[in-house]
Amino acid sequence: MEHNYSDLRVVALAGGVGGARLAYGLTQLISPGNFSVIVNTGDDFEHLGLSICPDLDTVLYTLAEIEQPQAGWGIADDTHECLDFLKQMGAPDWFQLGDRDLAVHLQRSAWLRNGIRLTEVTASLAVALGVKTVILPMSDQPCRTMVLTDQGEMDFQTYFVKHGWQPRLLGLAWQGSDMAVMTGEAQQAIQQADLVVICPSNPFVSIDPILNLPGMRTAVQQRPCVAVSPIIGGKAVKGPAGKMFTELGVQPSALAVAEHYRSLVRAFVLDEVDSGMIADVERLGMRAFAIPTWMKTREERVSVAAGVLSCAQGLLSRGV
Amino acid sequence: MEHNYSDLRVVALAGGVGGARLAYGLTQLISPGNFSVIVNTGDDFEHLGLSICPDLDTVLYTLAEIEQPQAGWGIADDTHECLDFLKQMGAPDWFQLGDRDLAVHLQRSAWLRNGIRLTEVTASLAVALGVKTVILPMSDQPCRTMVLTDQGEMDFQTYFVKHGWQPRLLGLAWQGSDMAVMTGEAQQAIQQADLVVICPSNPFVSIDPILNLPGMRTAVQQRPCVAVSPIIGGKAVKGPAGKMFTELGVQPSALAVAEHYRSLVRAFVLDEVDSGMIADVERLGMRAFAIPTWMKTREERVSVAAGVLSCAQGLLSRGV
Repeated sequence: MEHNYSDLRVVALAGGVGGARLAYGLTQLISPGNFSVIVNTGDDFEHLGLSICPDLDTVLYTLAEIEQPQAGWGIADDTHECLDFLKQMGAPDWFQLGDRDLAVHLQRSAWLRNGIRLTEVTASLAVALGVKTVILPMSDQPCRTMVLTDQGEMDFQTYFVKHGWQPRLLGLAWQGSDMAVMTGEAQQAIQQADLVVICPSNPFVSIDPILNLPGMRTAVQQRPCVAVSPIIGGKAVKGPAGKMFTELGVQPSALAVAEHYRSLVRAFVLDEVDSGMIADVERLGMRAFAIPTWMKTREERVSVAAGVLSCAQGLLSRGV
Repeated sequence: MEHNYSDLRVVALAGGVGGARLAYGLTQLISPGNFSVIVNTGDDFEHLGLSICPDLDTVLYTLAEIEQPQAGWGIADDTHECLDFLKQMGAPDWFQLGDRDLAVHLQRSAWLRNGIRLTEVTASLAVALGVKTVILPMSDQPCRTMVLTDQGEMDFQTYFVKHGWQPRLLGLAWQGSDMAVMTGEAQQAIQQADLVVICPSNPFVSIDPILNLPGMRTAVQQRPCVAVSPIIGGKAVKGPAGKMFTELGVQPSALAVAEHYRSLVRAFVLDEVDSGMIADVERLGMRAFAIPTWMKTREERVSVAAGVLSCAQGLLSRGV
């Protein structure tokens, strides 16, 4: 059965690679004016004086179809002349900076330094890269994820990139959370949405930073919301989500993710390999669906997006 | 007659390419600990949030033997991936930013933003690039050359690069000159110098910004000083010096340069093609010498430097 989703107003909440990939799929099904992606900025950091927004960049590059196909982040076929020379000069080189990637960081940093809001900066970068989808940072104020570990407290990029997410997670905190608010654009997008999609991103460090902004969780609760599990067969597709569940004392599984989003989502999509968990997930008070959720190719991203929209159909007040 | 200049304490005042080339020649004749180059920072500017110091970079790259051999500035065989992508994104691209060059701007900007003085930043960059010579910015405070032209007032890089020094020069001014002072390092280097060499740089926009700092002209006047003409056969070797003389109502010539430095220098070196001007220059109250002054190859730079030191011999209180 073919559906036409072009009139559906959808907001996706996304972190990095997994979120960007599902968002890409959704852009192929929904009219650009009806689709917004609200992106985690908890990973943002300053490096060599540059304002770097890893998740926003991953979403930007993926929607612009210029992302590194294997890694999922960074720009395809980028060179590293600047980074190599920085390294030669003894500068820190643990954070990958492609030469083209650097152009985005430079332009963003220059605009931010001129007092332009991150929301507007991101919109201008999207235009410059030919992206029509509305990409919204969750906040214009910094709200940085701090990771409390057995090796001390560290900012997210230090934990994630410099230490390769090896330190043991003890807890999370957000620096700036007393000042950070969701943007007017994000608020409006959610209020007007027919459906909110929580992408298969890390619940702790990609989605929670968005949901923890004042008023955000309540705003999402008031809309039909579907979440997609980033855990398949007990393992994270990418990154530390599985390891984080374990370190927080929870067996990593799609069910654990559903539990994490309990009382927020009305439908939950898990991978077909986890279909045995459907009954358990439904006992949490949400509908559950098993579909293929791997999104390596662009085609897979579109078919997963179509699957997710199809699963969410029953939540919508009006037919599509 | 071969001289050993290794014990001579020399300070060079330099702008960009011509200054960097003579400075390079001098490094091959004088012990690193005895030689300092004080460099014009009037050209410095902010671009895409980066602190760019064109003359310091040219001197750094030339002394590190990594300068573009033809242009004399920038890094040899540098790529432009970042700049090309910036251009693609609609960012200003009139200022050349090589990818490796960018690494230097990024590192410098990050250090400056951390409150480190430009003098120390420059010393660290020199170490990183393997340069043993002491390279000193004229000041740690910005003192920016503003060019008054028939097309309005503009900062130096806008005049020089963006408009290709085509607007007609009406006058010059220095933004920040009320706050800028010479550094302690520059002052000490001059006080301890056996000889000050004014390099063949643009008198108006490379050397005057240095000499105009409070106390600098007097400090130089108290030391034996030799200047080298950047005008050969009535034309500037590079850049707008000749055009500037004309627009200020003076026929460009080595003699006009000598006149410009009257009461400051005790010896003046002009190119052999201008040897007919020796008597006129000496009437200004300085000794004059004609030698070959073209410095394309590294060998020529060393032989010109040796020639300049030889001409200055008579000024020195002690024999060398």
